Amino acid sequence: ERGSVTLVGAGPGDPELLTLRAVRALQSADVILFDDLVAKEVLDFARREARRMLVGKRGHGPSCKQSEINALMVGLAKSGRRVVRLKGGDPMIFGRAGEEIEACRAAGISIEIVPGITAAQGAASRLGISLTHRKAARRVQYITGHGEDGALPSDIDWRSIADPTATTVIYMPKKTLPALVESAIAAGLDPATPALAIAQVTRPDETMISGTIAELGKAQLPAGPTMVMIGKMCASFQSDYRRDMKTAMQTSASP
Amino acid sequence: ERGSVTLVGAGPGDPELLTLRAVRALQSADVILFDDLVAKEVLDFARREARRMLVGKRGHGPSCKQSEINALMVGLAKSGRRVVRLKGGDPMIFGRAGEEIEACRAAGISIEIVPGITAAQGAASRLGISLTHRKAARRVQYITGHGEDGALPSDIDWRSIADPTATTVIYMPKKTLPALVESAIAAGLDPATPALAIAQVTRPDETMISGTIAELGKAQLPAGPTMVMIGKMCASFQSDYRRDMKTAMQTSASP
Repeated sequence: ERGSVTLVGAGPGDPELLTLRAVRALQSADVILFDDLVAKEVLDFARREARRMLVGKRGHGPSCKQSEINALMVGLAKSGRRVVRLKGGDPMIFGRAGEEIEACRAAGISIEIVPGITAAQGAASRLGISLTHRKAARRVQYITGHGEDGALPSDIDWRSIADPTATTVIYMPKKTLPALVESAIAAGLDPATPALAIAQVTRPDETMISGTIAELGKAQLPAGPTMVMIGKMCASFQSDYRRDMKTAMQTSASP
Repeated sequence: ERGSVTLVGAGPGDPELLTLRAVRALQSADVILFDDLVAKEVLDFARREARRMLVGKRGHGPSCKQSEINALMVGLAKSGRRVVRLKGGDPMIFGRAGEEIEACRAAGISIEIVPGITAAQGAASRLGISLTHRKAARRVQYITGHGEDGALPSDIDWRSIADPTATTVIYMPKKTLPALVESAIAAGLDPATPALAIAQVTRPDETMISGTIAELGKAQLPAGPTMVMIGKMCASFQSDYRRDMKTAMQTSASP
């Protein structure tokens, strides 16, 4: 039997946000190569006999190199295994799927992709925030808070972040948020634009702080994988989430 | 028993792209209010006893008014029903969820939201196109091809569409694409930027045409719900999809 690779989006955390197709892939896998952003409960859906291998990548800590992951994935598929490559969120949105797809194509390995709910969608559903409210947002955009070297990418189009009719979601901005906010405000973003930071979205330990984008640029962000959302719609989050910025900042500043 | 409303994303078409949570909501519904963009196979997951009501909205044809949908949804929930409001794609991305959430909150109705795979994600997975390849796209953005009146929105930030480091997905651009492309090129978008149009994405009758964005602006788009994707990554789609623009245009131009 020829092996194969299936890139599977594990969603933002809540295992109920897996797609039926993702569950099916997990249940027919020989080997699962998973990132540590994948919730443990998601792996519980895997076929019992499947070998589970953690291959990174933690935001900034030690992890397998991308080239090593590619080689492992291709090697297993070439030896006839059904490989599931399981990634947090959607593999096609800041998931480095591009490099893994290219590696499989170059090796002649058949590859299928199963999309997943990305963090922005998880946050929108949890907070009741439409990302594209007809009266407030023409455009929704996702950007990355760090480039290949971990620093703020130099080629971000700052004016597009300053646009008042956009909802912007920044993925993994922890280290770069102050610089990012400064650049966006310099390009014209209103410092009073509502914003929020949400960590561990859709998980039991989900936490959120809210304020203006200028405030968030100076705040200590919550622990764990975090995204930041900017735009008028951020002021409309569900009232059971309301806490004021001051409380949130005190909470996040305590050890 | 108190009624409730659950806004559920039905995904782009393939019923296997439903989330587990969406299936659970469909299986516990008393009434399902669905849009005609929802694939029939998705409704097959519904509880057998659930009443199914088509409430619109077809792109530009006759449909229930949004205010009528809101009133129906709130009325059913107030009379104790578990209402599922089922929308194509993700309700929070060009799904008018904002207005329905506001109506439920104003009426004191409990509302939950289940995100769905949106069309852009369906297309990315089908075509093997990373929306944010590290070497080609810093930013992915979704914009709407029509505003409240069906015309091209007047307040789109055209420069953000012209950014060569973005992947742009235009939802429902059928009537407005020529004007949209003209405005984007006037704002600096390279007319040679790779682009593609995909209709009925993830469904059995999925069709795709590809070319430069300038070519697509003049092409006849395929039949059915269609999205257009623009950006360097659009040139990297899976080779089993390759057909040249000329063939595709002839196909789409024939009756």
